[in-house]
Amino acid sequence: MAQKDNQIKNEAITRQEDDFAQWYTDVCRKAELMDYSSVKGFIIYRPYGYAIWEEIQNYLNKKFKETGHENVYMPLVIPESLLQKEKDHVEGFAPECLVATLGGGEKIEDPLIIRPTSETLFCEHYAKIISSYRDLPKLYNQWCSVVRWEKTTRPFLRGAEFLWQEGHTMHETEEEARTETLKMLEIYSDLGRDLLAIPFTKGRKTDKEKFAGALETYAIEALMPDGKALQSGTTHYFGTGFAEAFGIKFQGRDGKVYHPHQTSWGVSTRLLGAIIMVHGDDNGLSLPPYVAPIQAIVIPIAQQKLGVIPAARELEKMLKDAGVRVKIDESSDRTPGWKFSEYEMKGVPLRLELGPRDIENGVVTIVVRHEGRKLTVKKEEIVETVKHLFEEIHQEMYQKAYAYLLNHITEARTMEEFNKALEKGGYVKMMWCGSRECEDKIKELTSATARCLPFNQMPMGDTCPVCGKKAKKVVLFAKAY
Amino acid sequence: MAQKDNQIKNEAITRQEDDFAQWYTDVCRKAELMDYSSVKGFIIYRPYGYAIWEEIQNYLNKKFKETGHENVYMPLVIPESLLQKEKDHVEGFAPECLVATLGGGEKIEDPLIIRPTSETLFCEHYAKIISSYRDLPKLYNQWCSVVRWEKTTRPFLRGAEFLWQEGHTMHETEEEARTETLKMLEIYSDLGRDLLAIPFTKGRKTDKEKFAGALETYAIEALMPDGKALQSGTTHYFGTGFAEAFGIKFQGRDGKVYHPHQTSWGVSTRLLGAIIMVHGDDNGLSLPPYVAPIQAIVIPIAQQKLGVIPAARELEKMLKDAGVRVKIDESSDRTPGWKFSEYEMKGVPLRLELGPRDIENGVVTIVVRHEGRKLTVKKEEIVETVKHLFEEIHQEMYQKAYAYLLNHITEARTMEEFNKALEKGGYVKMMWCGSRECEDKIKELTSATARCLPFNQMPMGDTCPVCGKKAKKVVLFAKAY
Repeated sequence: MAQKDNQIKNEAITRQEDDFAQWYTDVCRKAELMDYSSVKGFIIYRPYGYAIWEEIQNYLNKKFKETGHENVYMPLVIPESLLQKEKDHVEGFAPECLVATLGGGEKIEDPLIIRPTSETLFCEHYAKIISSYRDLPKLYNQWCSVVRWEKTTRPFLRGAEFLWQEGHTMHETEEEARTETLKMLEIYSDLGRDLLAIPFTKGRKTDKEKFAGALETYAIEALMPDGKALQSGTTHYFGTGFAEAFGIKFQGRDGKVYHPHQTSWGVSTRLLGAIIMVHGDDNGLSLPPYVAPIQAIVIPIAQQKLGVIPAARELEKMLKDAGVRVKIDESSDRTPGWKFSEYEMKGVPLRLELGPRDIENGVVTIVVRHEGRKLTVKKEEIVETVKHLFEEIHQEMYQKAYAYLLNHITEARTMEEFNKALEKGGYVKMMWCGSRECEDKIKELTSATARCLPFNQMPMGDTCPVCGKKAKKVVLFAKAY
Repeated sequence: MAQKDNQIKNEAITRQEDDFAQWYTDVCRKAELMDYSSVKGFIIYRPYGYAIWEEIQNYLNKKFKETGHENVYMPLVIPESLLQKEKDHVEGFAPECLVATLGGGEKIEDPLIIRPTSETLFCEHYAKIISSYRDLPKLYNQWCSVVRWEKTTRPFLRGAEFLWQEGHTMHETEEEARTETLKMLEIYSDLGRDLLAIPFTKGRKTDKEKFAGALETYAIEALMPDGKALQSGTTHYFGTGFAEAFGIKFQGRDGKVYHPHQTSWGVSTRLLGAIIMVHGDDNGLSLPPYVAPIQAIVIPIAQQKLGVIPAARELEKMLKDAGVRVKIDESSDRTPGWKFSEYEMKGVPLRLELGPRDIENGVVTIVVRHEGRKLTVKKEEIVETVKHLFEEIHQEMYQKAYAYLLNHITEARTMEEFNKALEKGGYVKMMWCGSRECEDKIKELTSATARCLPFNQMPMGDTCPVCGKKAKKVVLFAKAY
């Protein structure tokens, strides 16, 4: 019966191989992660989608606080004149600003931009509160939503509004700021390894791809099963550019006056898009256990039979007391088969079935979402087994994604090889002369962009396949979201 | 020396009796709770202020989840046409809307209002996802900021932007919705009793004072030391008004089609204003222990002496391991006296002093912020004593505020008594005929407003002091923020 129900239900979502983009949208909707609002690009984060974001927030807040960061909240709006203070920055953001011009029925003299990012607001504040080396470092972070008026939008991947955290820090020395930029990149990478089961590729952005106003941008990139890369988080080193523009100065240990060195860094609800694509399948979402809002679902079988519901509730309580995020679905108007399919669609890592025969035998049937295997476990071993399974599943999901990644980094020494590699999907690894011209040319010819200069710069040759000139940098190109 | 430092520092803040409003602003700034931005009414929540808000969030999130609520995130913007769907509601909010009219450099056809509150957004979504009684109740909550274009603004008390939570729920029956409205009011009241040490007065709002679009509004009100009331949270029962306007319908258990019954409820960063005023004094902020981001500060005395810093760190670790939010200030460029004054200003509930003599004697000196008493405690009893003190301090602070409240509810049977009572400050309790005219007249004559019809409706007479007609309701009037 379960099988039949599954089939009926699964007709509702597109198969990955038929239309990957449509599959993605189907999962977003059917797993009840989000819904559209009446304004394009402004989505509704439904409880199940928002709960995943809350797990990410919990993980990062802990890491941020352990590394000395403090949360703050800055205004939602930036006066146009303030945004214009840093030249490169405003050029980067001006085309996609949402602008408020009316307040309380009257025209606003200096129009207010709904924050697309908050560097300018942090800098204005920092100028007021930093005056001595004793005031440094300032390690602030903010959780909020930002608005970028995008023409083409997709749930979680590109929105007119999205949720994110933005860290903005000020340091006494360049070295300290550079260390911060890399430290936060490491935390993002750990988030992938420990919570999302996603192997991120770390590296530096090319000048063309870096953030508006930054001297250097670093990124974590994730590879999607359609062969495209997804930039999943960035950290920036700004030098003293903003500090100069905003007049942020401090008296150093030697009594002289300096500008502090600045960083910023952020990840967004785009991570939900990465989770969906990296782990999902034709049955829907598939969540790694540590980020799953519901880690285990208890489904009573033949629940009208005496003793089944109480036994299922007892099982739920055992797991809950052990710290597992567990739920029970004892709704009587839906068949077990319908429920199996429903929680598969929602990507709940473990399904625990408990029927009269299981109770008689003192066992529970466990089904693992991500690869379907079935176990029969003694009731007294259930807590230990479930916890063990979480770790096992997490590792399996990570390793699977990692194997896919390794299998989709293809070296190219000529443009012919480049095109072939790109056709396969994934990253094309090549040597690069470093010129903007060659970078532009690749984009023009193939639509692929430089994703990053990976930290591992082991050379694989010395010629740029575009211009044939001497190359020294290893770069990863890919088509990207 | 400590005394002298204190005096120097404390000259910086206005005394309550000299200018209460200025004292309030001084505390907001000097305790580093907030700062102004360049846009009027949009404040910066600094780390220390934001951390208090995070404690409130933690408390409420736990309570909300225990009572079956789920967090979501709705769009920041509301199309003007959508806001206009519920007539009373739009009339209430239109005058204070911030409106975005430009996106990506182009005019937006249906201007976008930055959410002043999100009833309309929730209703639009609910119309899509509710179709059967099985879909009910929907118990959603959102943490976000909202914007109301206010002319007169004050930190935390009235802002153009403020942080809040807004719960929006849909129910099968009127009874269930009404129960929800009162249940959430109870949670807010518990928040005051358990976390903020503030005794809230609970009651129903008069029709004049209720929320735009609501059938009934309930409120928690706190009494400030200047005799004014501060509305600190509200819950609303909407009936089916919005549901009808937005076409939200469900098939009931009997197969017929109904509109669901709706509630909403919220508290905001205004609670920070209540904490500051209820507990603060001429030395600055004074925080009840359970909401304090730093519950205890360890200050080493003569810290250059051998063994002092290690002993202070050990003390900090002992407390941290016991779950206390403790910090140590071992900065060498500031005197202990400066530090005493600093953490008094920040309202840290306990100061732990540890010098060479204390170490020799195996004791720690504890100073209680809110009433200054000093204890000498044996090192091995410190964890137990600190935890005991937290509970004791919390109760003392609550009882002090409660005594003030009881002492500032004055009964009035004539307008003469009313005026006298109002002069004393606090609530004027009177019988009321229930007419809008009398309510308006009191406001016109005295500027006091009806704060609530308290739940305890024990009559104290049967004549309305304004019109002399028959009165049946007990009402509390007060001047209010």
